[in-house]
Amino acid sequence: MDQRISFITLAVRDLPASRRFYVDGLGWESAVDVPGEVLMFKVADKVVLSLWDETAFEAEVGQPINRGGGVAPITLSHNCATTDGVDQVLESAREAGADPVQTGAEREWGGYSGYFADPDGFRWEVAHNPGPIGQEVLP
Amino acid sequence: MDQRISFITLAVRDLPASRRFYVDGLGWESAVDVPGEVLMFKVADKVVLSLWDETAFEAEVGQPINRGGGVAPITLSHNCATTDGVDQVLESAREAGADPVQTGAEREWGGYSGYFADPDGFRWEVAHNPGPIGQEVLP
Repeated sequence: MDQRISFITLAVRDLPASRRFYVDGLGWESAVDVPGEVLMFKVADKVVLSLWDETAFEAEVGQPINRGGGVAPITLSHNCATTDGVDQVLESAREAGADPVQTGAEREWGGYSGYFADPDGFRWEVAHNPGPIGQEVLP
Repeated sequence: MDQRISFITLAVRDLPASRRFYVDGLGWESAVDVPGEVLMFKVADKVVLSLWDETAFEAEVGQPINRGGGVAPITLSHNCATTDGVDQVLESAREAGADPVQTGAEREWGGYSGYFADPDGFRWEVAHNPGPIGQEVLP
């Protein structure tokens, strides 16, 4: 199995709410938009973020989604070249309606990052990582 | 906020088990490996998959992880050019110890896919998507 991810799929409760946040709020451009089913965004070369209606997700995966308390065990990170860039992106997310937004902070791993929640509570990390791996992911 | 994902971070319970599956089983090459903390793999141009010890994840994100029954509301997809390719990757995952493995099937959205679980139960989709968006993600 090649070391490769093509799609990141998140199961979402309310696609119109996702559209309002990602398209109207953040200004992202969808690559696929099928109301009531799925909303897709290109997020890297050959990588697509897919927001999929949770009912269809459960039917295909064949398992119920974990709906207990707490956050999903995943974060999606958007890395920036500077700490100021991190603060600006967090502010943009706040203006787009992200809630909660955890402001930027110095981290034990040597960088600076904050978090925001999308309409389903999925946590996005906005990070400046000065290490080699952090530099490699920058545009 | 640019339309861009740099890292996909999964909170994992047992990093040695993750290493056995992804490195020893699937044969992936890590970009960063800090025992007890984190294991990272390059999975696309400027995109890194990070498996992070769940205790550190919870401490930084500031919320407990949802540990109820069911699956996490996310899948990572590995797309293939053919349906035979899908079957072969699913078999490789099975040989690497993935459990359960859901064999390939024709899907309502027009493609063919199966799923396997990693050691933490995260579902990977192995898919052939003949549509335009599915072709764009292929190597």
